[in-house]
Amino acid sequence: MENPIVKPVGTDVLQLDTPAVVLDLDDLDFNIQNMASFFNDRNKPKLRPYVSVHRSPAIAHKQMSAGGTVGGICVSTLDQAEVFADSGINDILLVNFVITKRKIDRLIALSKRICISVVVETIDNLNSLSDAFSSNGVSIDVFMLINSGGEFGCLPDERSIDLAQAIDSASSVNFKGIVGFYEGFSSYFPIDDFEEHKKNVCKIVEVKTKIEQKGIEIAEFCIGSTFDYEWAASINGVTQILAGSYALMDSNLARLESKFVPAARVLGTVTGTPEKNIVITDSGQKSIGADVGVAIVSDWQGLTLSSLSAEHGTVLVEDSCIKYPKIKDKIWVVPWDIGGCLNSHDYINGVRGGKLEVVWEIAARGNYR
Amino acid sequence: MENPIVKPVGTDVLQLDTPAVVLDLDDLDFNIQNMASFFNDRNKPKLRPYVSVHRSPAIAHKQMSAGGTVGGICVSTLDQAEVFADSGINDILLVNFVITKRKIDRLIALSKRICISVVVETIDNLNSLSDAFSSNGVSIDVFMLINSGGEFGCLPDERSIDLAQAIDSASSVNFKGIVGFYEGFSSYFPIDDFEEHKKNVCKIVEVKTKIEQKGIEIAEFCIGSTFDYEWAASINGVTQILAGSYALMDSNLARLESKFVPAARVLGTVTGTPEKNIVITDSGQKSIGADVGVAIVSDWQGLTLSSLSAEHGTVLVEDSCIKYPKIKDKIWVVPWDIGGCLNSHDYINGVRGGKLEVVWEIAARGNYR
Repeated sequence: MENPIVKPVGTDVLQLDTPAVVLDLDDLDFNIQNMASFFNDRNKPKLRPYVSVHRSPAIAHKQMSAGGTVGGICVSTLDQAEVFADSGINDILLVNFVITKRKIDRLIALSKRICISVVVETIDNLNSLSDAFSSNGVSIDVFMLINSGGEFGCLPDERSIDLAQAIDSASSVNFKGIVGFYEGFSSYFPIDDFEEHKKNVCKIVEVKTKIEQKGIEIAEFCIGSTFDYEWAASINGVTQILAGSYALMDSNLARLESKFVPAARVLGTVTGTPEKNIVITDSGQKSIGADVGVAIVSDWQGLTLSSLSAEHGTVLVEDSCIKYPKIKDKIWVVPWDIGGCLNSHDYINGVRGGKLEVVWEIAARGNYR
Repeated sequence: MENPIVKPVGTDVLQLDTPAVVLDLDDLDFNIQNMASFFNDRNKPKLRPYVSVHRSPAIAHKQMSAGGTVGGICVSTLDQAEVFADSGINDILLVNFVITKRKIDRLIALSKRICISVVVETIDNLNSLSDAFSSNGVSIDVFMLINSGGEFGCLPDERSIDLAQAIDSASSVNFKGIVGFYEGFSSYFPIDDFEEHKKNVCKIVEVKTKIEQKGIEIAEFCIGSTFDYEWAASINGVTQILAGSYALMDSNLARLESKFVPAARVLGTVTGTPEKNIVITDSGQKSIGADVGVAIVSDWQGLTLSSLSAEHGTVLVEDSCIKYPKIKDKIWVVPWDIGGCLNSHDYINGVRGGKLEVVWEIAARGNYR
């Protein structure tokens, strides 16, 4: 696993071994305070930070301390839930399906330690959970996951109403409410689909109304992400916004959302200047990630990251570039998808005023199961 | 970091928590023996396994034990060199530039423990190394890196000859020979560029001849990868082939090279069947990787992996599919780029005959510096 090559506190950021993932702590604090104040100023909805973007307990605790939250977080895998539970967070929503017996056993074990809730999309899965929790004499909070244009979840049609009724009457299962799946929107869709996104979300609101008309209470209605939290917060009945990317940001979100700053970047070193208009850096796919788009060179006019091999980046230099990069120069890149980038790193360097302040473990990195 | 969720030896592979990276040990042994026998049968060239694909000392030692090697390995980063040195490998070629003072200091430290060699592409970098090693009273074996169509390295023109003369006369530097950069070829290029690749490699051979005509001895000439090792081995004067992907293979290489079998795969579980002709698995970009191409579903006719979100895969099911996947069914995927896939994992499950035999640490995962 990653060797953090820990440097003394106070080390100049440009003296870190590269490639390094660097988090500007002032920018992080700005983003967290900015989002917290939006939610602190209102009764409802509240924020439930989606921490699977950064997977770092230290950052999650900062998000929780800033206020405006429901008092809990959400995660994408059972592994992540276990790590964050061990970090002292007692209210976790797992936005994923727990299907196999082995994982249901782990969910039961975790439910004895903290308040864990989970989503379901099928009656079959609901019945598996209900049977297993009943046999163990415990219960679980369950949300139904409704698909608002993402890859998975129950479609917002009659099946959703059947599922709601099934959850409502299942034993050892507490029907908590609805989670609208939106993840695909903020990560992958172009900005001009926002109207389409709104329409999709409205379909979920309609289904919620139909379920309530059957006499079933929807205590919690969770929807919205960093990109659409303001709009989502204006929807009647929404109680929780599951935003997380706002804390670190990335090139993709910065393109769509201007109220937060890219706090996390990858620092690289120029290792080659093979020909005119091309420089090579030591930061490639393994350290930046390239699963969605190509990262953007920041703080240096006239440079464009054009491609990434496993270990190296190729940067194009415009003729108009005033300061031509030399060997050993440092290059900052804002990853397109910070979640994908951090998936490769076990540690993140926290700096303030250009000096190293802390090295945080990305404790839930690699926790896919 | 990854929680390995270690299972007892003998556990049925289908009982592993998913997503899991699984290595079939019989297939691994077949690939390693197959390659070793090619090199055992000849005096020259010999194999120098390129271990940055898998980053696992256990696999590297298997490659070394099988024979046909030069008695050493090559790696892509200084971090990796340190990990493999700690695993007991004493001859390591670092196919990367060591530029900054901090890294040169680490290289000097490592050179006191093992036989480490490094590549250079510029006279500037050569001088930095020569000065630093001289000051420390030690020396280093240096290869010149010549670019045969990859992203970096000295171009095969007059500059290469100047560089060779500079290396030959630098103090505290032993000129070992030439490494031809070819990595881009096997990972990213289409198969019909093979003739172009041959032409590029021939340019390096021409430069080598010109250097030798200056009275400079080229003791070692390293070129070739898993894809072109047979052809490269037939080139006069080649002494080392830097192949590594043959051990684990992936979808990309299996398409180009039929003499090895895909030994490493990702095991996933069907977690959703949201609509006709679509199933969702628990294996997304984070566990499979998607930096180059899309992985291929193996062992199940009629299934195609169509896209990956962070945590999930979307699999298309053809109408003709005889056995329609159900929730909890297992899906095997051969990653397009096994190097990118393993970059996300700290452990790999070794199985034989469908039963877990060993869990190997990918000890140099995340070692980018």
